[in-house]
Amino acid sequence: SIDGQRLWDTLMAMAEIGPSANGGSCRLALTPEDAAGRRLLLDWCEAIGCTWRVDRVGNLFIRREGRRQDLDPVATGSHLDTQPKGGRFDGILGVLACLEVFRTLHEAGLVTERPLELVVWTNEEGSRFAPAMVASGTYAGEFSVDDTLNRRDADGVTLGEALAISGYAGDLPVGEPRLDSFLELHIEQGPVLEDAGEAIGVVTGVQGMRWFDVTFTGQPAHAGPTPMRLRRDALAAAARLIDRLQTHALADDSGDTKVTCGCLEIEAASRNVIPGEVRLTVDLRHVVEAELDALEARFEQELAAAGQTFGVATRVERIWVSPVVEFAPECIAAVEQATQAQGVPYRRMMSGAGHDAVYVSRVAPTSMIFIPCRDGISHNEAEYATPEHCALGAQVLCNAMLSRANR
Amino acid sequence: SIDGQRLWDTLMAMAEIGPSANGGSCRLALTPEDAAGRRLLLDWCEAIGCTWRVDRVGNLFIRREGRRQDLDPVATGSHLDTQPKGGRFDGILGVLACLEVFRTLHEAGLVTERPLELVVWTNEEGSRFAPAMVASGTYAGEFSVDDTLNRRDADGVTLGEALAISGYAGDLPVGEPRLDSFLELHIEQGPVLEDAGEAIGVVTGVQGMRWFDVTFTGQPAHAGPTPMRLRRDALAAAARLIDRLQTHALADDSGDTKVTCGCLEIEAASRNVIPGEVRLTVDLRHVVEAELDALEARFEQELAAAGQTFGVATRVERIWVSPVVEFAPECIAAVEQATQAQGVPYRRMMSGAGHDAVYVSRVAPTSMIFIPCRDGISHNEAEYATPEHCALGAQVLCNAMLSRANR
Ligand SMILES: NC(=O)NCCC(=O)O
Ligand SMILES: NC(=O)NCCC(=O)O
Repeated sequence: SIDGQRLWDTLMAMAEIGPSANGGSCRLALTPEDAAGRRLLLDWCEAIGCTWRVDRVGNLFIRREGRRQDLDPVATGSHLDTQPKGGRFDGILGVLACLEVFRTLHEAGLVTERPLELVVWTNEEGSRFAPAMVASGTYAGEFSVDDTLNRRDADGVTLGEALAISGYAGDLPVGEPRLDSFLELHIEQGPVLEDAGEAIGVVTGVQGMRWFDVTFTGQPAHAGPTPMRLRRDALAAAARLIDRLQTHALADDSGDTKVTCGCLEIEAASRNVIPGEVRLTVDLRHVVEAELDALEARFEQELAAAGQTFGVATRVERIWVSPVVEFAPECIAAVEQATQAQGVPYRRMMSGAGHDAVYVSRVAPTSMIFIPCRDGISHNEAEYATPEHCALGAQVLCNAMLSRANR
Repeated sequence: SIDGQRLWDTLMAMAEIGPSANGGSCRLALTPEDAAGRRLLLDWCEAIGCTWRVDRVGNLFIRREGRRQDLDPVATGSHLDTQPKGGRFDGILGVLACLEVFRTLHEAGLVTERPLELVVWTNEEGSRFAPAMVASGTYAGEFSVDDTLNRRDADGVTLGEALAISGYAGDLPVGEPRLDSFLELHIEQGPVLEDAGEAIGVVTGVQGMRWFDVTFTGQPAHAGPTPMRLRRDALAAAARLIDRLQTHALADDSGDTKVTCGCLEIEAASRNVIPGEVRLTVDLRHVVEAELDALEARFEQELAAAGQTFGVATRVERIWVSPVVEFAPECIAAVEQATQAQGVPYRRMMSGAGHDAVYVSRVAPTSMIFIPCRDGISHNEAEYATPEHCALGAQVLCNAMLSRANR
């Protein structure tokens, strides 16, 4: 059985690499802090006899050998990079829980049938290089290696350049090694488990997501002399769209329809000027692909109506699509059985957020384990999960990995 | 009768001081460009025998003596400062039309009974130092001289320091000289006259204006895993308020209710984060004070409802109030008679925008003259008024000033 205190100590130690003012961490992908976090992890893993390799997009594969070196490894992992004002758990828990599993097996002198593999995926957050989950997506064939290496951060540095500087530009071909299965432990990043008083989420899949950039083009004019009827107010049209989408999503009693407008920018905004151009981001999610199609159609219809009502031209660009993911029954079952063995309240649930498991599931049987996080808060320095929940998640991960590795 | 071509030439010459890329001007208040514009005007005025004085907040009083030096002058004027991407007419027309009146009288050898005074008010636009019309407001007693001199621009420079650097820090006590009456020629800055095919607006007053800063405070959270029902989305609340206010204003068939939200900012905006804090500006206007009270009450009610619906705290600060202004009947009559003498279509109208005449009307009988501007566009490099309309406005100004000065 894993050591919860030891796991907690590694989480707190990792948080000191790129510490941020309010108790969180700032370890943007492929910065010196990210490299230092990887180095600390590798020191810990090397001390218990693990070996490691890095692929061409910086994904880090840390192996604990099994009895059967001819078989593909049972893998787990997540990411060590954070948001600019990130927390101590998002991604990191999934990595350090596997370290704890390795240490526990090491102390017990246990060797699994199949090898075990801890994967640290590069740039999951998407904060430094867009989009999110880009390196697990490259591993799974969604993005080409060249495209990924050429993606630039806000300062114009490419991912390939940052990799070289960080010292984690490897030569393992992307897509290697093949994985027998993949299990990812993560904080829920939402309030569902906490609200229900449940300790574990057995993750059966990931909701579909579509990202859009919308531009509203009206006519800037003076707020005072311009009659309402003659205005072409870009912000009025944007507000109408946001309000209609909110109303639509809130009316879905199942709670499965999700709409978020996270960014809104007014061109040359001034207090007494009618906004002439507005840029808005729209994030649509649903657990059923056909419903997501319907939601997108509704969005386009509301957008056209809002534009027409306010005499504003609208343009929409679909910039990212991640279809609904259904995880593999055998991996879900492994997680569910390991959870039931702990005798804690749990639920089967879809993930609301994207994770590296989304892309990995295309090339290997996959599932995930969620634990609650306080107030559902994530991507925030205040992010918190209790030591007890972290330990429980690691124990479920350990048991599910063993059942997969020794089957 | 005034010389329309000569007036046009001075407008185009002034536009070359602080020219901007797309045919407009950038002459922010008390910059070297603004000072150069004032110098050019003074050269022109000195050449025809005018004298001038500057008060402690930089207001420039240029006098053409009358026969009765013991009487207060009949005044006109406006401002020479522009928006950062301003046009060639907003403010400038009102100043240079008076120069054209002075030149016409000079050539004709005419001397009026009362003196005539051309006033260039400092920092009308409010772009460099907030609020707008601050120096005419100080002249009229709305703001104290010390407060005005201590207002800072975005770089922390005070208006007093900028005045000293510009060379236009005078020693005339603010409030001097007293004015017999004040007439201001200005472009409409809206589309009403152009739409109706009318050449002159006889301005009977200025609508009331109230400015508000609103803050919505919800809870930032991850867009994916957070159920709609548990969100506290600050942008959703702001959008609801904007939409309800738009609907309310558009439903007023009189067209007198005006609502503008010009600025909206999301704190730490990110595409997949539910907005936790939004700041919004609200500009409410109406021609009837009691209706403006009702509009403000409606705004507060819609704000409270939007906050409650989305579980978002709201805070509102009223940062500027300009009550409805009714101009003086004798000045309105002077403008209307001068307009009728031209035989052009005109209307009596309220001004939608604030002008220096708003504050001056508190201490002297006042009215304004509007001419159409193309597409109603102002505060924009594309701002345009035809040479014919400029000449017509200057002629009406000339005749109205003469009737006031010789009465
Ligand atoms: N976990 C996470 O924040 N992934 C980014 C993609 C998303 O918005 O769900
Ligand atoms: N003319 C003008 O733009 N004045 C500023 C105050 C207002 O917004 O009306």
